Amino acid sequence: MTIAFHHHFRNGDYILNRVVAAIAQKGIKGLTLAPSSLNDINEAIIPFIEQGVITAIETSGGRGKLGRFMSSGKLSKPTIIRSHGGRARAIEAGELKIDVAFIGAPCCDASGNINGINGRSACGSMGYAMVDAAYADKVVAITDNLVPHPVFPISIPQTQVDFIVVLDSIGDPQGIASGALRISRDPRELLIAEYATDVIEHSGYFKDGWSLQLGSGGASLAAAKFIKEKMLAQKITASFGVGGIAAPFIDMLEQGLIKTIFDVQDFDIPSIESLKNNPNHLEMSASYYANPHNGGPIVNNLDVVILSATEVDVDFNVNVITDSNGIIMGASGGHSDTAAGANLAIVVAPLLRGRLPMVLDRVNTIVTPGETVDAIVTERGIAINPRRTDLIDNLKDTRLPIMTIQELQKMAYDMTGRPEPIAVSDEVVAVIEYRDGTIMDVVRKPL
Amino acid sequence: MTIAFHHHFRNGDYILNRVVAAIAQKGIKGLTLAPSSLNDINEAIIPFIEQGVITAIETSGGRGKLGRFMSSGKLSKPTIIRSHGGRARAIEAGELKIDVAFIGAPCCDASGNINGINGRSACGSMGYAMVDAAYADKVVAITDNLVPHPVFPISIPQTQVDFIVVLDSIGDPQGIASGALRISRDPRELLIAEYATDVIEHSGYFKDGWSLQLGSGGASLAAAKFIKEKMLAQKITASFGVGGIAAPFIDMLEQGLIKTIFDVQDFDIPSIESLKNNPNHLEMSASYYANPHNGGPIVNNLDVVILSATEVDVDFNVNVITDSNGIIMGASGGHSDTAAGANLAIVVAPLLRGRLPMVLDRVNTIVTPGETVDAIVTERGIAINPRRTDLIDNLKDTRLPIMTIQELQKMAYDMTGRPEPIAVSDEVVAVIEYRDGTIMDVVRKPL
Repeated sequence: MTIAFHHHFRNGDYILNRVVAAIAQKGIKGLTLAPSSLNDINEAIIPFIEQGVITAIETSGGRGKLGRFMSSGKLSKPTIIRSHGGRARAIEAGELKIDVAFIGAPCCDASGNINGINGRSACGSMGYAMVDAAYADKVVAITDNLVPHPVFPISIPQTQVDFIVVLDSIGDPQGIASGALRISRDPRELLIAEYATDVIEHSGYFKDGWSLQLGSGGASLAAAKFIKEKMLAQKITASFGVGGIAAPFIDMLEQGLIKTIFDVQDFDIPSIESLKNNPNHLEMSASYYANPHNGGPIVNNLDVVILSATEVDVDFNVNVITDSNGIIMGASGGHSDTAAGANLAIVVAPLLRGRLPMVLDRVNTIVTPGETVDAIVTERGIAINPRRTDLIDNLKDTRLPIMTIQELQKMAYDMTGRPEPIAVSDEVVAVIEYRDGTIMDVVRKPL
Repeated sequence: MTIAFHHHFRNGDYILNRVVAAIAQKGIKGLTLAPSSLNDINEAIIPFIEQGVITAIETSGGRGKLGRFMSSGKLSKPTIIRSHGGRARAIEAGELKIDVAFIGAPCCDASGNINGINGRSACGSMGYAMVDAAYADKVVAITDNLVPHPVFPISIPQTQVDFIVVLDSIGDPQGIASGALRISRDPRELLIAEYATDVIEHSGYFKDGWSLQLGSGGASLAAAKFIKEKMLAQKITASFGVGGIAAPFIDMLEQGLIKTIFDVQDFDIPSIESLKNNPNHLEMSASYYANPHNGGPIVNNLDVVILSATEVDVDFNVNVITDSNGIIMGASGGHSDTAAGANLAIVVAPLLRGRLPMVLDRVNTIVTPGETVDAIVTERGIAINPRRTDLIDNLKDTRLPIMTIQELQKMAYDMTGRPEPIAVSDEVVAVIEYRDGTIMDVVRKPL
């Protein structure tokens, strides 16, 4: 059987570990675990994988001890890593068949209507859980906040919920959402953010009614500050903003710079409050967000997305999953979905991380294919995908340090030398699915 | 192929007739027409049925010329009549497979996000269309109000829409929604409404947090007036109200007597305005409303429903489809769904219609089975289903004219004489499906 969980509680999640422990206690083995993502807190399940309770994982990625464990080859099957849109697609297509979805419910009534905006474990949008609830054979709502019927607004309807379990506590509010995510003060990140904003300004997409998504990484979030300044100065408003939502976006919404927010997940308390109170702030499912095989996910309407990267290569391919030792340490998330959907996909990253160059001949793990990446912005130079002659043309008269990706790579290699390739075995420990289900790459067990 | 339409535009609908005419022009024949319901205006399709463009109908019922046509046996297959919940169930189960859903969209953006609350053809809730959009192979939105992306609130998401067609006009606002539906001034209807309210008051269900649905018939709607007075006097509030919504419910919502409204369809302009402006007024799909095979439709949470009837019988069975000549002249709607779901299902009707008694030995067409009907309220007497000994007990000390159903029937027959049975042929012209898909009854062609 396959069991699913949402990761809206992030490092405050009490549900996944507790349910897996309870399943283990019953002596059940051989399950596939299919959460929308995994967080550090979920490393508590490693012993249950070792005992064979869980023998396969299908998720967005892994971090810390769990990422290292996934990379170790100790699971009987390779982990399947999907983007958020790819997971929604796989569920709707029946490729990822969920037998039981366990859904942490911050606010739930006795008939099973659920929302994520009320209660001590409020997490905001329930976007990932919405797909699980709609398609799982059985849906178990787990709540620490059972309230009188009917709960509304309704994120997950009573028509999809089969069982309701009441616990004292389903999560740690401190771990679920932070205070307002603040803009970085790191000068390098700020410079990258400023360059990225300049690229947007001159790209041809920066005009009234445009739309944008910002990643939650430092430089990507910092771009909000500069974008906001330019929008105010030029009296430009955006029709919508998308994504995992954080305070800088809420600020732009409240100032009328963004007319609508589509929210699949909230990173901080101001975002949760905004979803609760602002009618222009809309909750959406992971399918509405990014499933490429429905009638049109909102990522396909995006003008601009700013994304992070672990490493990129001269073909503009991006890795966000494995580190410089080949170990799984990140998640696919909406990276490849938004890069493919947006008219302008900008990847921001420092040119060097410590003594390691960020631009390689070939990334260790391709998550987002280069043909969907339009610009790579570092603190020392900006490379535009040569397929985008229109962009190159639009940017040629700016003062931006535009160069070829090879020049960018050379600049890095001149400082660090050519990095040693990672030594890996033949054993495949993870499979990277693209949003449409094709296999984009595999992760091999590092030696 | 099967084509589907919603009936939210009622007698103002331009879509169904126009699409069927266009299909006929292409020379296509042998289609099944599966609208959520049909209105008088749709009698324009009769020639296309005669030409074989449409050879089968699956819907909620029929009225006027179309009802008489359905009863004539000229369709190659018997019409399948389903309740609103039964239709949602059949669609979700794959029994009613919709190839193309044509959806009149009062407000639509270029990506296909739709709502029913804005535009000159505003109809309010899109509840019936939501099921069609979610399950049809192809979805065609037809709008006279294409607005900038993104439309919100979103009743039907862009992920479900395949094509968008823009017309000058999709409906006649005068026919779509009336001004505020007013409470009847007919003394007989008011007396029936008052009796029904008294039954509710003493039933055991009239307490804080109760829930209710009122039909749109005269006596049933008039009950809102008396219920409201009793709720104010006894300081009782309802947790929710359900149904096709009209002004008297909105009045109760705005006075705080009803905390939430679940709205599958709007009958008048105040209801559309309320859906647009009041966050406690929630749109719901026909599946959420009444599909008995999902995890729990809202009708199953109902305490009380007041329903109309064409005729009832001594076993408490109700007919709302055929008239005293056996001709189809009504629709199943949510009748059997709410009767089954509610704790107390009250059927209101005059004891006589002209010279015809309303209580028969056996109704001509069973739509709602007697085991789900708890009380029959007329202006001359009230019969409680003998299965409901608890109700009989609760009502025994009131001044209400409680009697057996046989006494009620005798009172009618003493005035009218025993009615002649309707002469019918062997030919089945319509099949009445119960909410769960079982065949409840058939309609035979009258001689």
